[in-house]
Amino acid sequence: MNELKIFTPATIANVSCGFDVLGLALDNVGDEMIIRKIPENGIIISKIEGQDLPLETHKNVAGVAGLALLAEAEATHGFEIEIIKRIKPGSGIGSSAASSAGAVWAINELLGKPFNTSDLVRFAMEGERLATGVAHADNVAPALFGGFTLVRSYEPLDIISVNTPSELYATVIHPQIEVKTSDAREILRTTVQLKDAIKQWGNVGGLISGLYTEDYDLIGRSLQDHIIEPIRSILIPAFDSVKKNSIKAGALGCGISGSGPSIFALSKGEETALNVGEAMKAAYNKVGIKYDVHVSKVNKQGIKIIN
Amino acid sequence: MNELKIFTPATIANVSCGFDVLGLALDNVGDEMIIRKIPENGIIISKIEGQDLPLETHKNVAGVAGLALLAEAEATHGFEIEIIKRIKPGSGIGSSAASSAGAVWAINELLGKPFNTSDLVRFAMEGERLATGVAHADNVAPALFGGFTLVRSYEPLDIISVNTPSELYATVIHPQIEVKTSDAREILRTTVQLKDAIKQWGNVGGLISGLYTEDYDLIGRSLQDHIIEPIRSILIPAFDSVKKNSIKAGALGCGISGSGPSIFALSKGEETALNVGEAMKAAYNKVGIKYDVHVSKVNKQGIKIIN
Repeated sequence: MNELKIFTPATIANVSCGFDVLGLALDNVGDEMIIRKIPENGIIISKIEGQDLPLETHKNVAGVAGLALLAEAEATHGFEIEIIKRIKPGSGIGSSAASSAGAVWAINELLGKPFNTSDLVRFAMEGERLATGVAHADNVAPALFGGFTLVRSYEPLDIISVNTPSELYATVIHPQIEVKTSDAREILRTTVQLKDAIKQWGNVGGLISGLYTEDYDLIGRSLQDHIIEPIRSILIPAFDSVKKNSIKAGALGCGISGSGPSIFALSKGEETALNVGEAMKAAYNKVGIKYDVHVSKVNKQGIKIIN
Repeated sequence: MNELKIFTPATIANVSCGFDVLGLALDNVGDEMIIRKIPENGIIISKIEGQDLPLETHKNVAGVAGLALLAEAEATHGFEIEIIKRIKPGSGIGSSAASSAGAVWAINELLGKPFNTSDLVRFAMEGERLATGVAHADNVAPALFGGFTLVRSYEPLDIISVNTPSELYATVIHPQIEVKTSDAREILRTTVQLKDAIKQWGNVGGLISGLYTEDYDLIGRSLQDHIIEPIRSILIPAFDSVKKNSIKAGALGCGISGSGPSIFALSKGEETALNVGEAMKAAYNKVGIKYDVHVSKVNKQGIKIIN
């Protein structure tokens, strides 16, 4: 095998109560990548379709993540990467993570799988470090494992793949405004009220329980964020009305995707998820900002080979 | 049925990472209570064996919890309660919770079960309010549900009964010193570092995952408390050496039981739990403070009828 074409999914990080630790992968929203062996050592980004992103290996997240893998691999050759970029950078649904995770996943396949998935998360995090200044794992982990993932710990890195109920669908609205991850991080306070933190870890516990027992109602009750959302939502126009409309349309819960500006909702079943999409659109049509809406099953597989 | 004799278990609240939300029930450590119908309305505490506690209904946690239940019940008679107190008050393993939970559980049985277990938690919390000034649920919930419980939310009250692996054993050492719950609460800070809170909810997520997947190693990795233990452990002599010895003896994790002074460890299998008990004793024998050690399976049943 000298070449692979893959689908690498968009991801929703944080998932309301799980700031910096929870994430999930989408099923029909993502990039495509072609990775092929080349005789020269190192990594070449030969082509990026769809977005204006740097081709220089050291400035490209897929390049940096791939080099992190190669630094620990015994490879007698290098890799060429083409990216067909469908996820818009800065949308808050893991655009850089899809590229980083896709690159290391495909290179690992082409090398005969010398690394396990947790290793791949570690390499892909180097792409995230380039993209945002912080090597976070909450997008690359679900892209690589599929489904829901929990970053239990960063030191040492400990990723838990969490059961994902089959009827869980995500609806995402991406308003075409820019919220820089660094800005979204800067407005956060470094301390939080203990009473709010207790509510938050109660909800994390409830969400994880609900995922294992496939209790959709419990999942919904647990999708609350008492710490980050009250601060970050002010950066997102019409956040409150999108959330209100989504819940009214039957969503289990609704919150900020990653650091925004995308807003996500989770629903039981595709029909409800589609209705939630219409309800989100109705809220945004009043605002006068362009948007995209995605409806997707939560993807249990993660990155996959396509034709 | 006019009379019941019950076993009502000791409980471990907080369980390292789950301050104010997690708890578990013990199997062979607890009180006995006899509850019988009487013609007069209200509740009489007729006898307390083993401890010097108030018999006046309004000053006794079992009395207060029972009255909270009766205020919502249609009862044409009252109840007499005898308590055989084996859990020492102030030990940090849910002495007041055992009495409150036992009273409302038995009264509900004798009334033909008009209330569900979550209602019983709510009534028993009134006993906790009398005992500590705060109507917390993290001891009464596991006493009533058995196994591990999560208080996802207090407003509204939302208790989740979490899967409990069969080979999970607890070892508890109770040093005979007094740590008042109110003092243990007062030394806590009202704010916490966001970075520590993130670690904490990562561990809560990991612990809940480990309980559902019966992954003892993950349970162990998740039994960490970055927020409360560093502060409260200074109130407990030899805490660090008990913890170190316990882990060395094979415990999955070790922390403060409730607000202390008891220290608990969880282990896989009874043999390890017994070894951990010896390791705890070895640490305390150097201190010169009297202690009790309990080794118990984690109780999946909660309160039960005995002869």
